[in-house]
Amino acid sequence: MFDPDGPVLGIDPGLSRCGYGAVRRSTGAELVAVAYGVLRTEPDDPLAERLATLEADLEALIAEVGPSALAVERILFQANVRTAISVGQASGLALAVAARARVPVTHYSPNEVKLAVTGSGTADKAQVQEMVTRLLHLAAPPSPPDAADALALALCHGWSAPLRAATADGGAANGDAGPRFAHAVAVALAREDAP
Amino acid sequence: MFDPDGPVLGIDPGLSRCGYGAVRRSTGAELVAVAYGVLRTEPDDPLAERLATLEADLEALIAEVGPSALAVERILFQANVRTAISVGQASGLALAVAARARVPVTHYSPNEVKLAVTGSGTADKAQVQEMVTRLLHLAAPPSPPDAADALALALCHGWSAPLRAATADGGAANGDAGPRFAHAVAVALAREDAP
Repeated sequence: MFDPDGPVLGIDPGLSRCGYGAVRRSTGAELVAVAYGVLRTEPDDPLAERLATLEADLEALIAEVGPSALAVERILFQANVRTAISVGQASGLALAVAARARVPVTHYSPNEVKLAVTGSGTADKAQVQEMVTRLLHLAAPPSPPDAADALALALCHGWSAPLRAATADGGAANGDAGPRFAHAVAVALAREDAP
Repeated sequence: MFDPDGPVLGIDPGLSRCGYGAVRRSTGAELVAVAYGVLRTEPDDPLAERLATLEADLEALIAEVGPSALAVERILFQANVRTAISVGQASGLALAVAARARVPVTHYSPNEVKLAVTGSGTADKAQVQEMVTRLLHLAAPPSPPDAADALALALCHGWSAPLRAATADGGAANGDAGPRFAHAVAVALAREDAP
């Protein structure tokens, strides 16, 4: 199911700024950035139009990147309700577009992503930006932070998916990311192979 | 903008059960039911596929009903976060589909809808079901309650929209429903004309 040579597209869902970041395997276990940025909608536009714009942009992005997998941030139940609704609306569109394009989706919690790229589940946004910049050998930190978060999601999936694909149940396409243990091991392996 | 002769489609967003109900003006101020029911997705299916299914069903519904307006339940910030995410995902799809079809959307809070159809902003689901059944002269109460809630949304908009369209700012297509005062008056007027 998972094509280890295809790009992984990370999505950090949001209505005003929806971060995206795609990584692809190069030599060995190293992952390189293919594309990253944010999709924006205009806060002054009617909500329905903003959502339609975001959905069209997500469709165009997936068509352009041609991802073999989507890694989408799981919304935390600790978030406040107003944010949860807005992020729920944006994530719902991303998931529906992915399903239409037959791209499998895996969810990762913010803590899982931080742990994978910084080694700490409680890292702040600046630390994530810094580690993403170093791990992907970028000339400058991805900005805004939503783009860095999306690249971190893609890295997290790119490192952990091959390991999960090798397990008996074939990983968790379209489902949860499995035990955190697996990511930690995958990250460690990937880092040893990285230059 | 608002065509008083076209059906109003009420949507009570939800992922497992998304209620819908369309009403059309018949003689005078009376509104009659055109269609109602629920769109369901299978809880055991992957989330992304459920959202894609719901979006396709909403698209088909809007194409079939040809509404001149959508009335969508506003998600309350008092809801719990888990529910808010799920309802946010469903409502986001409904709004995006409506915007693509160029159907204006108006939001109503549950209290506004209850007030409009029962005269009490704190009515329970059974009271809403009963009043919707009586007001629309239905042979049996719409079931599940999500369908009755969607018809109540459509009634609320059908009664209040002509009044709001007559005001100087032309109502609030794609926006908020305006002062609650306006609905109460519109409801009263409509009820006097109803048989």
